[in-house]
Amino acid sequence: MAQTKPEAPVVDIHTHMYPPEYVSILSSRDTIPLVRTFPSSPDPRLILLEAELPALERALQDPSAPLPGRPLTKHFTSLPHKLAFMSHHAISISVLSLANPWLDFLSPAEAGPIASQINTSFESMCATTNTTTTTNPTQQQQPQKLFFFGTLPLTAPTPTLLSSITHLTTLPHCRGIILGTSGLGAGLDDPSLLPLFAALADANLPIFLHPHYGLPPSVFGPQSARGDYGHVLPLALGFPMETTIAVARMYLVGVFDAVPGLRLIIAHAGGTLPFLAGRIESCVVHDLKLGGGAGKERRTVWEVLREQVYLDAVVYSEVGVRAAVEAAGGADRLMFGTDHPFFPPVDGDAEGEWESVRWNVTAVEKALGKGSREAEMVLGGNAVRVLRLVEE
Amino acid sequence: MAQTKPEAPVVDIHTHMYPPEYVSILSSRDTIPLVRTFPSSPDPRLILLEAELPALERALQDPSAPLPGRPLTKHFTSLPHKLAFMSHHAISISVLSLANPWLDFLSPAEAGPIASQINTSFESMCATTNTTTTTNPTQQQQPQKLFFFGTLPLTAPTPTLLSSITHLTTLPHCRGIILGTSGLGAGLDDPSLLPLFAALADANLPIFLHPHYGLPPSVFGPQSARGDYGHVLPLALGFPMETTIAVARMYLVGVFDAVPGLRLIIAHAGGTLPFLAGRIESCVVHDLKLGGGAGKERRTVWEVLREQVYLDAVVYSEVGVRAAVEAAGGADRLMFGTDHPFFPPVDGDAEGEWESVRWNVTAVEKALGKGSREAEMVLGGNAVRVLRLVEE
Repeated sequence: MAQTKPEAPVVDIHTHMYPPEYVSILSSRDTIPLVRTFPSSPDPRLILLEAELPALERALQDPSAPLPGRPLTKHFTSLPHKLAFMSHHAISISVLSLANPWLDFLSPAEAGPIASQINTSFESMCATTNTTTTTNPTQQQQPQKLFFFGTLPLTAPTPTLLSSITHLTTLPHCRGIILGTSGLGAGLDDPSLLPLFAALADANLPIFLHPHYGLPPSVFGPQSARGDYGHVLPLALGFPMETTIAVARMYLVGVFDAVPGLRLIIAHAGGTLPFLAGRIESCVVHDLKLGGGAGKERRTVWEVLREQVYLDAVVYSEVGVRAAVEAAGGADRLMFGTDHPFFPPVDGDAEGEWESVRWNVTAVEKALGKGSREAEMVLGGNAVRVLRLVEE
Repeated sequence: MAQTKPEAPVVDIHTHMYPPEYVSILSSRDTIPLVRTFPSSPDPRLILLEAELPALERALQDPSAPLPGRPLTKHFTSLPHKLAFMSHHAISISVLSLANPWLDFLSPAEAGPIASQINTSFESMCATTNTTTTTNPTQQQQPQKLFFFGTLPLTAPTPTLLSSITHLTTLPHCRGIILGTSGLGAGLDDPSLLPLFAALADANLPIFLHPHYGLPPSVFGPQSARGDYGHVLPLALGFPMETTIAVARMYLVGVFDAVPGLRLIIAHAGGTLPFLAGRIESCVVHDLKLGGGAGKERRTVWEVLREQVYLDAVVYSEVGVRAAVEAAGGADRLMFGTDHPFFPPVDGDAEGEWESVRWNVTAVEKALGKGSREAEMVLGGNAVRVLRLVEE
């Protein structure tokens, strides 16, 4: 049979889902994060950020007030919608992850069982989809495949936490874990996290590091002004700075030296790390005496970036993609993502093209050359290689 | 007389001084910012940041505790040291500015007279130096020249504030003003600032926007850890994020449309703006309906950057310089700076070469090509053109 060169796969490593059991938990809660229904809204509302609390309180008191948070559409919860989105944007593989705030808010007793349930649910979505779509390849250009990043019960006792990692290694479609910046509650430079990081390194599970907590609302100015600016400041600036602070703290405390097998994939192209790495280096050199662990010399921020870190390409600009590639040491360390189902189309037609996806594709193509080998690597090849995205 | 092509000038637009009258004010204060002497330190200590308060309290109680803040060396206060630093690094022109926190902490009654005194002091330094060095050009490669960015009495009543701008227009070496992010106290999106911005635009005085307040210490993790990391996190991450938030708020509230003649020079290569402009754009498009003022269409963040904003080149990396040039729309909008007297040599020999200066020069040369026209523009040509750095 004649063979043509297969189309380079497009892989989305930054794409979120809330399985039904997770939505039930959020709907039962009285504090943020939570899900609420309002008579004036067809979809329930998803309220994730502390900054959204004033809008929630207004809406609960005044039915004519603007709705808080964002609509919890089928794009957040339904597998068919995820697959349709992939098909519409020619994405052949997605690496799903639970969206923030994951299980950070659960009680110690419930976290373990719920993590197990949710990770099993993701595994089942992947297994079912891959069986179905690969036997019927005529339905779309390429068979659609799913993998996932698991979720850890961070509030559970350490033994539960470590056995949840063992559980993930038994799930054939798990390719890493998604992690927020609070860790066990005290941040990612907390020494209590080292056994967890070591277990992840041993299990060959990279960390997809993702923001959620942002910055305190006061840094964005007076309350009144913040309302007028919507979510722009917390999401556009708070999220990337939260991410950058978390990684800088990991670097400063020596996590990367203590666990050399640890691999990090940083959301949103590293937050602001590619742009600020030079300034961090300068401040370290001028203000600290850091060693490199075990009597070795300190590795620079750049060296750690290029040895233990990957970045996603969710940065919405050619300038950002190029800086991320240069900071990471090459186009082989950047991986495309969509951030679906966040940033839906402005015209409201979520079944159409998503501008946010187009922007990120265009940014890669403009920075690296449309159709170039480097662009293909970022759009898919790197993820296939780094995350071993083949059926086992 | 035969003429040779003159050496391209190196201009430092980010270089701070504390004149003696300012040091007296800081020495008389009981709250941060302040200057204190300690028996174990040859230089007085300069304590500027709220994050340094615990270290100050420890040092006041325990003579063996590490000294708080940083040494207030002659490099902060002495004009001969500034000129020697310039000579040593082949800087032919410096645009001096008062260092943070400027006059932000003064009482309304004292702010006006002190601003007038300090601006006159800067004018006098420039006038004296320029007369002296230009008549004796054999002493160094090029005559050293000084200009300055003035300081505004932001806590004073509006008429005082506006007349301080008028005063600056009478000082022949003033080329703009340095401004922090708090404005009149409520941030730079405060509508009360519009008359001030309009007066600055009318006077053709650009704003050199500089951080000071950083982010709340809590965002950098627990107290104990913060001590271990020195100033790294507040300075490397807090400062650039503070700057980025301030400019984003100006953009969102429409300052650039309301005062189209306003020109901003943003410190530290725009904080994180070059890297995050794409994400800000995406969040604005997805979450806000912004107009462009007076019924016009919204200008993108990129358009405003390229029409009303310049960036300094204090970013300590080739990656950062390239991203800044691309974001600003070309190498004609970036201007070299040293941040002297901050980031002194690690080996303590402040009369030798400063690594921090070399890093920023090297970053420009690597990003744009050593000796290239673009590198020469960034290292000096742009500042001469934009700030009209010729004697009037």
